[in-house]
This record gives sequence, C-alpha cells and structure tokens, in this order.
Amino acid sequence: MSIEQREKLDAILRQSAFPADSTVDEQRRQLRELLSAFPLPADVTVTEGKLGGVRTAEITVAGVEPEHVVLYFHAGVYVLGEAVLTADLASQVGRRTRSKVISVDYRLAPEHPFPAAVDDAFAAYEALLRNGTAPSDIVLAGESAGGGLAIATLINARDRGLPLPAAAYLMSPYVDLTLAGTSMRTKQDVDPLLSPTGLRPRVTDYTGGTAATDPLISPVFADLSGLPPLIIQAGSHEVLLDDAVRLAARAAADDVEVTLDITPGVPHVFQAYYGILDEGTAALDRAGQRLSARLTAA
Amino acid sequence: MSIEQREKLDAILRQSAFPADSTVDEQRRQLRELLSAFPLPADVTVTEGKLGGVRTAEITVAGVEPEHVVLYFHAGVYVLGEAVLTADLASQVGRRTRSKVISVDYRLAPEHPFPAAVDDAFAAYEALLRNGTAPSDIVLAGESAGGGLAIATLINARDRGLPLPAAAYLMSPYVDLTLAGTSMRTKQDVDPLLSPTGLRPRVTDYTGGTAATDPLISPVFADLSGLPPLIIQAGSHEVLLDDAVRLAARAAADDVEVTLDITPGVPHVFQAYYGILDEGTAALDRAGQRLSARLTAA
Repeated sequence: MSIEQREKLDAILRQSAFPADSTVDEQRRQLRELLSAFPLPADVTVTEGKLGGVRTAEITVAGVEPEHVVLYFHAGVYVLGEAVLTADLASQVGRRTRSKVISVDYRLAPEHPFPAAVDDAFAAYEALLRNGTAPSDIVLAGESAGGGLAIATLINARDRGLPLPAAAYLMSPYVDLTLAGTSMRTKQDVDPLLSPTGLRPRVTDYTGGTAATDPLISPVFADLSGLPPLIIQAGSHEVLLDDAVRLAARAAADDVEVTLDITPGVPHVFQAYYGILDEGTAALDRAGQRLSARLTAA
Repeated sequence: MSIEQREKLDAILRQSAFPADSTVDEQRRQLRELLSAFPLPADVTVTEGKLGGVRTAEITVAGVEPEHVVLYFHAGVYVLGEAVLTADLASQVGRRTRSKVISVDYRLAPEHPFPAAVDDAFAAYEALLRNGTAPSDIVLAGESAGGGLAIATLINARDRGLPLPAAAYLMSPYVDLTLAGTSMRTKQDVDPLLSPTGLRPRVTDYTGGTAATDPLISPVFADLSGLPPLIIQAGSHEVLLDDAVRLAARAAADDVEVTLDITPGVPHVFQAYYGILDEGTAALDRAGQRLSARLTAA
C-alpha cells in the first residue's frame, strides 16, 4: 500500500532494534518503550486474571459482546514481553472474531527456561476447557514466540488427548530456534528489528539444556498431523520469513488445513502497527474473516 | 468436510488415472472422458474466439454482467486438455469475479514443444491489452500446467515491460518439471491421479531440447520479483503439493504478495469437482473473494 507508511515504520523499528550485546534487562526495558509508544485504544479494557494457575490479562472491547475466546500468546523470543504490552494487537483479533481475549503471561527465560512457557500455555488451555468453554469456541493466537507457543500447545493437547480449538492464528511465528531458515541470511539487511546475531544469545536463554531441535521448542521439526486449521501471516522483510513458510509447508505435508499469507515489504509482526500501516489492518481483516468462518462452522 | 465426498471422488479419479505406458492419444481421449462426465451448467455459454492469433474459448455466465476479464489456462501437462473441457471450472472463477473468461487453447506438445505454449499465452495477454482492456481489470488463472503458464506469462510480461494484471489465481500449479518436489515421493500413495512415472514421458514431450530447469518451464526456479499478488491453492493429496508450496516460498522470498491455501485430503485441481465436493466450492469462494478485492482495489 503506502510506501511512505512502510518507510516511516522501518525507521521507527531500526531505532528500536536490540543491539546484540545488550542485556536481557535492557532489552525488556527497550521493548516496553517501543510498544508503549502505541497507546491502547480507549475502548479496550485489560483486567488481570488467572487461568490454570498462570497469570493472564483479559482483554475486552467496549461494545463487543464476546461469543468466543481467543487464547493469546505474546511475542518476545521467550525472554521479553508481557501480555499487557500487546493488548492493543490482541484486542484487534478479539474485535474481529467477537471474542474475549485471554492473553497468557507465561513464565520467561532465562529465569524460567523451557519447558516453563510451554507448560504454562498448556495449563491455560486445559483450564479454559475445564471451565466449560467449548473447544469449537476457542481460537489460539500468537505473535512471534507466541506463535511457536500456540503450535506447541496444539501438539501437547493433541498428544494428551484433549479436544482441539477451532483454529490457530500465527503472526510471524518463531518456530525454528536452530535459526536455520535461509531468510536468516537473505533478509538480514531488510529486517529492521531482528538478526541472527541478536537472536542467538536469547535462544540459549530459553533452551537451557534442551536441544533447539526439540519439536516443542522448534515446531518446524514437529509432526503436525491432526492439528486444526492454521492461519499463518508474515512480512517479506523479516529474517523469520522462512519460519512461517516452513511451518506452512510442514502443515501441508501433514494434511493440515493451512493458509500462508505473505505481505511484501513489511516487518516482523507488522499487524501490531495497524494504526500507521494499512497492510496491518488488511492482514487483520483477512485473518478475522478466516477465523470467524471457522468459529461459525465449528 | 465430508469424508464420503472425498472417498467417492478418489474412487472416480483412481479409475481415470493415466497408466504410465499409455500413449498421448489414449491419454487425451481419457481426459476428455473424465471431464465430460461433469456436464457444463445450463447457464454457461462457450464461444470460439481468437486472441493474438491464438484460438480461445470465451466463457460467459447468463445473468453475470462482466466487469473484468479472466485470462484462463487449462490443465494437461502441456500435452493434453482443451479450453472447452474445463469451461465449467473456468466459469466458476468468472462467476465469482464478475468476469468474462477467455480460456486460451494454447498449442500442445509433443506436436508443439516449449516455447509454443508460453508464446501463445503471452500473445493472448498482449492482445488483450492491445484491445484496450485495462491491466487492472485482468486476472490470470490456471490449473496445473495452466498455472505454470500463468506464471510464465507474468514473467514474460514483466521482462518485456508490459503492465501486469491485478492478480493471478493458480490451482495446483505444475511449476517444477524436474519433478524434484519431495511430495513426488511422499504423496504418491494418496494421489489418485498423477505419479512421477506417469509425468516423466510427458515432461520430455514438452521440454524438447530445452532444460527442464528453464524458468519459463519450471517457474520455481524463476526470479518472481515484481509479480502481482498470487493466490495459490492445492490439495494435500497430490504429488504436486510441493510445487505449490515452493512457488509460494519463492514468491515470498522475492517480495511478492502471496497466499498459499492448502486443503487437506483432496486431490489435484480439486476445485473442478465442486459439484460433488464441498471443499471445492469453499476454495473457489475464498479465491473469488481475494480476486474481487484485488480487482476493486486496482
């Protein structure tokens, strides 16, 4: 759409890019600053909650009578981020699916390495079912590492015999912590935010003693058979592009209904900047339509 | 959707599968029989025409006042098929985009090997522009080899400085005639229609003296930069699944807007069987929405 919008966003993000040698605390502060610059819409309310013993942020939109639930997982390479910081983006998914959003404040590495985040995500999903929410009324959604966590939760639910949700919506999913995607190299110059050098130290923060090829850490290596429909979006200006592409390829090979939806020239989790980027709004609208169709069909 | 529908279609197609040792003439007759079993809807009219010196079948639907044009390329591994045989499926694309469909009867191999088909497809597109149709009112569409031909036409138009159409819609595109996709092996048992053994003799019919890696023969090896939005659909039960996946991956890497839309458990060009397969109708509906959005935006 507008090249000016894309250039402006690129400049903002390049200023915010994490230096590879900065500490976890510095990066946490920096991410908070970047995301706080995009204020929460006036009609969005965030309430602290708990689900399966895990802290959550419940996100509702004034005037939207929720009929469904989006269980949401925020970004931050399993080390940074908080549910409340992406409440704006999460509320956009809720708005488009007539859903209450429950964003999970899963435990972060390095204080809590794998499988803490995966365990928390699963505990939240299990509790949601136990509380009486029909699986057909649930969508899992996540950005970046949160996308990986959504897939890991589906795999865990499948393997433990739990009913699966209606669909999952993954924005720029981070699903290969071996950083083996070709785009790690080919998209490095055009990605304003992430780089393999920046990601590497955070990988070991999370994996701890476990191999990065573990399917619950890197779902591109998982058997995805039996998973519900996946809607995967990414920008072409991100080192994680190949994570999205290979997750879709894996899902297709495993007979999963999957839509891969690539927007050219935009960065990692570009939907978050919908307020200043038309492509963000358009992508959220497309995802909303697909998710609503699934929620209605189920 | 319905497992019974999928099983019935699978049985029909397995009966029609081309034996690897049958001749081109036998295969042409067989394909005609398979497709003639699905009669043309009563409201569809097919008229013989010419465009850029190439024979065409113009397909209109009673009651649909055409506002746009779909330039359509039929299937048949560049050796079989005729425009009129897939008029039903083509009309479904026209119906959903308020378009007249012009289906191109490009020359077939082995009588006319590469680049005859590519030349005919390009000549038709060039003539359509020369006749005064706005590029923003044109969609290219194709099934199987016709999908490859649509991409080859976009590449040719880009390289010769012609304006590009609003979008392209590719159903199970056949875009790697080296047959290198992993699904050639992994999906062989579940594909009721095609197999590498069956495809191989038809590849050399078409390539003649040219390497199968030529980007106009196998667009998975092409630079796709600058191409308009691509909508790619495939079933997970086809040996050509990886052609679709890798074309989408290539487009994403080259900063092209692309949607890859995979339906599980259905065969090659499953949209053709929309009359007996709900997934076919659903996929056509999704494509129609995306194409219409592009035709309106342009």
